[in-house]
Amino acid sequence: MEEAYERTSGYVRSTPVVQVEPGALGTSARIILKLEQLQHTGSFKPRGAFNRLLGQPVPRAGVTAASGGNFGAAVAYAADVLGHAAEVFVPESTPAAKVDPLRALGASVVVGGAFYADALAAAERRCRARGALWMHAFDQHEMIAGNGTVGRELETQCSGLDTLLVAVGGGGLIAGIAAWFEGRIRVVGVETKRTASMTAALASGEPVDIDVGGIAADALGARRVGELCFAVAQRLVDRIVVIDDDDVRRAQRDLWQRLRLLVEPAGAAAPAALLSGAYRPEPGERVAVLLCGANVDPRSMDVSKLADGEP
Amino acid sequence: MEEAYERTSGYVRSTPVVQVEPGALGTSARIILKLEQLQHTGSFKPRGAFNRLLGQPVPRAGVTAASGGNFGAAVAYAADVLGHAAEVFVPESTPAAKVDPLRALGASVVVGGAFYADALAAAERRCRARGALWMHAFDQHEMIAGNGTVGRELETQCSGLDTLLVAVGGGGLIAGIAAWFEGRIRVVGVETKRTASMTAALASGEPVDIDVGGIAADALGARRVGELCFAVAQRLVDRIVVIDDDDVRRAQRDLWQRLRLLVEPAGAAAPAALLSGAYRPEPGERVAVLLCGANVDPRSMDVSKLADGEP
Repeated sequence: MEEAYERTSGYVRSTPVVQVEPGALGTSARIILKLEQLQHTGSFKPRGAFNRLLGQPVPRAGVTAASGGNFGAAVAYAADVLGHAAEVFVPESTPAAKVDPLRALGASVVVGGAFYADALAAAERRCRARGALWMHAFDQHEMIAGNGTVGRELETQCSGLDTLLVAVGGGGLIAGIAAWFEGRIRVVGVETKRTASMTAALASGEPVDIDVGGIAADALGARRVGELCFAVAQRLVDRIVVIDDDDVRRAQRDLWQRLRLLVEPAGAAAPAALLSGAYRPEPGERVAVLLCGANVDPRSMDVSKLADGEP
Repeated sequence: MEEAYERTSGYVRSTPVVQVEPGALGTSARIILKLEQLQHTGSFKPRGAFNRLLGQPVPRAGVTAASGGNFGAAVAYAADVLGHAAEVFVPESTPAAKVDPLRALGASVVVGGAFYADALAAAERRCRARGALWMHAFDQHEMIAGNGTVGRELETQCSGLDTLLVAVGGGGLIAGIAAWFEGRIRVVGVETKRTASMTAALASGEPVDIDVGGIAADALGARRVGELCFAVAQRLVDRIVVIDDDDVRRAQRDLWQRLRLLVEPAGAAAPAALLSGAYRPEPGERVAVLLCGANVDPRSMDVSKLADGEP
């Protein structure tokens, strides 16, 4: 992990933290927000992508990934910065608004089938055929370690933390963070009801497929958590709490109204656990909350309704 | 100033800074952004408002101010937190979207005439008649000193600064900051062509009236800078640079596209000075840029066009 931090530190932004006052997030506890949505390409994903690319020789064929979302943008960005070719497979459903930024970063975008699973299978085939470096969105050691550097960074920014709340998709972010802290603080995962793949895996004792949907599915909707991620999470994650899509919407609105932070649904999941009461801190507990992404069109945000007490 | 800092520190947020990489803001210099738009009510204004309210006894009649914008919200918020009545005068043109938050914070909102000057005159009359405490939007010592605490805070957050860029409206923010730094760093003001009241004052040797308009007029459009503000600025501000409304729009878009920071036009003025080349740092110069406000409806933001190089 320390190695991942050293390796990537010249390439990723050290993102700031802000302490918010009691009451601002539905709890009397003092809360630290880690503003990782200010990372390059608007999510934490470049941390893992840079770590994998910097940790080994990259073949001349470059890198291949499957993702029309945050991971695709991060791979395209990291490959562009480091001078590698990138091929990014997306399903047919990916809107132009998500494809155009990949192309703007120099990636070749390939429509790889009707659904994500098709794009993933096509990408893996193509990657093997070309001898490119395969970039998995979460279930690779370098991704986990790279993503975990956000935990190391947070620990240098605030001392005496008891708990960190973090959204869970495929599990690569929470696994990296939990591996960094090794039980020194409680790492609590947050999933929406319709993307609760880690909850299902922990109940089954192994990763299992679930049906995904809802407001946060574009970023948290891995049908099955990663094997490597699960192994770490099972051992080192304190618990997972589950919230509704409405909790996410309300958290998006509150973050804008009270703090002028605009985040995507996945980025609002962790604070939504506080605002909804799904996670209730003990008196005096010091809780950090990771905002993991902001890839959303501001014009689509319904943030006009007043929150109580602050315009 | 130190006194203002001690007095207000339990009431205002310590806002974070983020270092952005060379190139991100149109310059090869490494730039520090001070995210003061994350302050309560979405602008720096509560710093001055709290300092004035905490620095003297507040009469039972409470406080009176004239502003349908950032200052009005800050006065309403600070008065609410401290348990004082607030009466805020606004011109007829103030939209409901700006009046409703004032009411939500418990302020009495009074429509005081057709234009801001009318509302201001009505507010002053009423304040005298009721024996309330008058809150001027910029030209009071406590406002200047309170606003200057953002400079003190910044200095503790990053060492070795050479320059700070800050937007100028009536001059209360830049005066407070310049008074804090006392020439230890260059404090550079930024005005739009259509709100260049400090530029006009410096050219005339005294505050003079100008016609104001354009994209940033709601926050920067003081027709005349304050007398107290001018006296400090004339002595301690290095220079004022002037930008176009288009520079402001582009900066708003770039801040979102590259950093996922959404700010109002006034909040984008200081970074726009870098992006437009109106202020060009020397090689090695360490420049901080203050983002002073984010009171804008995200749905109105035209941030969809791609910036070069990053989605």
